Amino acid sequence: MISKAEIKTIASYKISKYRDQDNIFVVEGVKMVDELIRSNQEIEIICATKEYKHLNTIKAKQVLEIKEDDLKKISSLSSPNQVLAIVKRKQEKEVELKSKLVLVLDQIKDPGNLGTIIRLADWFGIEDIICSLNTVDQYNPKTVQSTMGSIFRVNTIYKDLSQYLCSVPKSYPIYGTIIEGGKDIYQQDLSKEAIIIIGSESHGISPEIRPFITHPITIPSFSRDKRAESLNASIATSIIVSEFKRR
Amino acid sequence: MISKAEIKTIASYKISKYRDQDNIFVVEGVKMVDELIRSNQEIEIICATKEYKHLNTIKAKQVLEIKEDDLKKISSLSSPNQVLAIVKRKQEKEVELKSKLVLVLDQIKDPGNLGTIIRLADWFGIEDIICSLNTVDQYNPKTVQSTMGSIFRVNTIYKDLSQYLCSVPKSYPIYGTIIEGGKDIYQQDLSKEAIIIIGSESHGISPEIRPFITHPITIPSFSRDKRAESLNASIATSIIVSEFKRR
Repeated sequence: MISKAEIKTIASYKISKYRDQDNIFVVEGVKMVDELIRSNQEIEIICATKEYKHLNTIKAKQVLEIKEDDLKKISSLSSPNQVLAIVKRKQEKEVELKSKLVLVLDQIKDPGNLGTIIRLADWFGIEDIICSLNTVDQYNPKTVQSTMGSIFRVNTIYKDLSQYLCSVPKSYPIYGTIIEGGKDIYQQDLSKEAIIIIGSESHGISPEIRPFITHPITIPSFSRDKRAESLNASIATSIIVSEFKRR
Repeated sequence: MISKAEIKTIASYKISKYRDQDNIFVVEGVKMVDELIRSNQEIEIICATKEYKHLNTIKAKQVLEIKEDDLKKISSLSSPNQVLAIVKRKQEKEVELKSKLVLVLDQIKDPGNLGTIIRLADWFGIEDIICSLNTVDQYNPKTVQSTMGSIFRVNTIYKDLSQYLCSVPKSYPIYGTIIEGGKDIYQQDLSKEAIIIIGSESHGISPEIRPFITHPITIPSFSRDKRAESLNASIATSIIVSEFKRR
């Protein structure tokens, strides 16, 4: 059975400082933990109810049985679901720019948006996402849950974007969505190798990043009176990535 | 200044029963209320802080000044933002099936997903959405907020889907995303007039609705080992609608 001290430590992981300190992240619920187990990642701790333990084979360094009430204390979900796992973070991989698409996220602030982008990147076979230093933490509980397991497969790293984009070879095209003056995404040939920059939900791509864009693009609106003003960041990403991949 | 009774009534609108009873919905925050004002909809009540009132011209049947503390009591937002409006619902319009795309949502349960779908429908010029009776309420506060104003422009109605789809003329194609055996969405001509059925986040299109699909479609995964299992419902909708519109 889980101890009071263990409950306290695990509950502290709701706060990013403590997750960072211990270099871990938290995965919750039956479905996500299933994904976790299939991903062959090393699991530090699994806290599971008696029922869950009874029905599942658990492979983790440490297995702690937990009562529903205590699970509520350590969980970030509004309805905790039987099991919670603590996982060591994978080492970040440097991105090798070689005939592939790479997503660059500039100031994505909403945890759900980041998780959804990681999930769709996985669907479209994009292996790497580079986030600005002020993009939300990929290990935020809401982000982890909304990746639906894709966090185990996509390499998401954080960088000073200006510095990183400076180092990109001149021959590698850099696409970015801008509101005015971009080329219609449906009316052009899109490269098989490219960096695609996605801007923040409210401010788009930041002024210091815009000069790096070699291929400004726009998703045209079909709204009759053009009153639909914008698309959610993850929706815009999906439309753009789908266009790159469909050819 | 707002009275205690008024605070109680408006706070009750967090619950759908009371919104339905009074045939209204709630719009919150500076940005959304801006959209509301531009939409020329009749506004029943605006509750605004002194600062907001000072800086904005307000046109509503009733304007109530409110203190920050009281705004917290009536708000559904974690950080209430200066203003909250009560709006009479528009009359639902029957959908006229005539050379256009119509979205049909089957059991969309997540309020944010529904709001995001309404927003992207607006962007792509889709005027009508027909929801199954068990789809989440369009007037759920989270849905309203995530439409970013598109709720004022898109006609979203609720129907028994089997009954409705029975009444659709045989010549009108009905597309639906199925997991196995659908035609690759990128490899076919898509009709300019169509009904597009989107299934639920966890169960897809329900068994009793599937027989109505005349054109089963699939979004192919580009994931290397096909381990990315699914797309979020609003992401799938955006990719499909983008394909229909791009030609």
